Amino acid sequence: MSDPLAQLINPGLRAMSAYHVPRPEGIVAKLDANEMPFALPADLAEQLGAELAKVALERYPLADGGALRGLLAREVGVSPDQVVLGNGSDELIALVVAAFSAPRAGAERAAILYPTPTFVVYRMAAIAHQVDPVEVPLRDDFTLDLAAVEHAIATRRPNVCFFALPNNPTGTLWPPEEIAALAARHPDTIVVSDEAYIAYGGRTLAPRLPTLRNLIIMRTLSKIGMASLRVGWIAASPALAAEVEKARPPYNVGALNQRAAEWLLEHARAWLDARAREVVTLRESLVRDLRALPALRVFDTEANLVMVKLDGATRVWEALASRGVLVRNFDRPGPLSGCLRITVGTASENAALTGALRAIL
Amino acid sequence: MSDPLAQLINPGLRAMSAYHVPRPEGIVAKLDANEMPFALPADLAEQLGAELAKVALERYPLADGGALRGLLAREVGVSPDQVVLGNGSDELIALVVAAFSAPRAGAERAAILYPTPTFVVYRMAAIAHQVDPVEVPLRDDFTLDLAAVEHAIATRRPNVCFFALPNNPTGTLWPPEEIAALAARHPDTIVVSDEAYIAYGGRTLAPRLPTLRNLIIMRTLSKIGMASLRVGWIAASPALAAEVEKARPPYNVGALNQRAAEWLLEHARAWLDARAREVVTLRESLVRDLRALPALRVFDTEANLVMVKLDGATRVWEALASRGVLVRNFDRPGPLSGCLRITVGTASENAALTGALRAIL
Repeated sequence: MSDPLAQLINPGLRAMSAYHVPRPEGIVAKLDANEMPFALPADLAEQLGAELAKVALERYPLADGGALRGLLAREVGVSPDQVVLGNGSDELIALVVAAFSAPRAGAERAAILYPTPTFVVYRMAAIAHQVDPVEVPLRDDFTLDLAAVEHAIATRRPNVCFFALPNNPTGTLWPPEEIAALAARHPDTIVVSDEAYIAYGGRTLAPRLPTLRNLIIMRTLSKIGMASLRVGWIAASPALAAEVEKARPPYNVGALNQRAAEWLLEHARAWLDARAREVVTLRESLVRDLRALPALRVFDTEANLVMVKLDGATRVWEALASRGVLVRNFDRPGPLSGCLRITVGTASENAALTGALRAIL
Repeated sequence: MSDPLAQLINPGLRAMSAYHVPRPEGIVAKLDANEMPFALPADLAEQLGAELAKVALERYPLADGGALRGLLAREVGVSPDQVVLGNGSDELIALVVAAFSAPRAGAERAAILYPTPTFVVYRMAAIAHQVDPVEVPLRDDFTLDLAAVEHAIATRRPNVCFFALPNNPTGTLWPPEEIAALAARHPDTIVVSDEAYIAYGGRTLAPRLPTLRNLIIMRTLSKIGMASLRVGWIAASPALAAEVEKARPPYNVGALNQRAAEWLLEHARAWLDARAREVVTLRESLVRDLRALPALRVFDTEANLVMVKLDGATRVWEALASRGVLVRNFDRPGPLSGCLRITVGTASENAALTGALRAIL
């Protein structure tokens, strides 16, 4: 960076490095990205390919989301005008922050709140939009300190609060009913229930939308077998949804993504749902096997991931990687020191992981 | 919007309505969105569909852009580490604004500058990121008032200046060499050469990247037959690119989009290039035919669009739509009062348009 330009860099980015996803060779078990571990059956993939060949590549995608918007609205029991589509949750988080970023009377900047450790994109969205991040530490076991959240809301007056239910990367489920009660107590604060992992645990707050006008439900297809597509959506009151819709770039979900998501929801839904249930069963075995290893602290989880804590985590992570077992390393100074996040894989991937751990530890 | 939440809305969005793209039935000529008018030949579309059937839908896209990043780097003659991929130019504009949004010493907010009328997303990005938009009016014939730009840079000190070369929606080409000279005179200001329409006119400033460390080249596949994919990219010095890369969501270009763009650039490039050249030829005929209509003022254009000005533009736009001819209406109070933007279509679409205009006017 040449000197006269350095002064222009967003101060929140200056100390950061770009998000790097390692892609080593010879992977035996890819357990690093909370993806569903099952490939679409070949006959379905072929049919989908034939559908995608019909998409008019030279045309912009349907700006209103077309049929997909209705299908996603049905997932959460709302009408299409209550839904805003995003290029994954990543973009929707940014759009929500951008839409509701007016500083409160007397304040210089707006703020957003989230418990931490949690999904890093909430913080990124705050930095990108000149909004202050208010981070409320979780307890040592990654459960929610509701009193601390209440105190932070009272003193810092955030515009938006994000709660990942269940949480990533910890897997913890904070009580959804407590979050709904918190939304009811603070009608001038927007509360986002980020339900990316809802297929694996928790209860949706979508039925509370008619009474909680400050509630936003956030969903994604990424964790249920369609991570490639980058399709996320929010559901909210028509008035709230309309404001986020204004901030949305009109062609943010590509036509291939729209068509693939539509087709899969219509033709592969039963298969995808069965695979999600299979992951829940696989998780129970995996947690049992991990808890049999005395070197590990294994946290409770309701997502398709298991957070574990151990001495020498980075060394173990490297040893796993050298055996082709890829998990996500969170071991750096701070609340996740010593932590590795393990995505639930297929039975053989999970066996490769636990076998490697037994050999290493 | 319930009262206690209204105060949270980004003030820039309050007065706006969402971007609405009309989709009437019975379209004879779709000349409203600056798309390329030619569908991919059926054999190529089928081969592409078969390739897309092989994409691992359950996995996130390659975070580093994979082979596509290298292909796009080659388009502008730079190395892959100088390239940042975006979900269309829309997202890249937002990322550039977010990355370079630090207020200058003594200022409360950062500013970005662009001539106007131009692409509306520059303004949207300023609003979303709490940055001041500095708008410099074009002359009556939509040419650039360089002295006014210089004055605005000196007085308002923008962090980033956006120049669409050629410009949308006017089609005008501002002199690229003057923009390069302006970048050289202001090394502490980032200058973006938005070359979305470069296939249809103008000269790329990409060869100036080695000497102009404050220059960003912005490109997209949208105008050259791949609008469905939402693939854009910027090229800049490695240091500038690295800062934008930090602001980029890692999975912003979906796997189907990545694979389709790669495959088309490798297998359909000659066909796409020939179609772009065909559009240039079609534009020359269309401009000639439009200039034969005395009711129209037809502006010079170097893009795949023609801006025309006429009395009763909205009435004419409606009459065209009722005949199935869709163009873009910009007729509202302001510098584009009386203006319609016509995308260059196929020979028969252009004939449908000019025939309809002759009947209406």
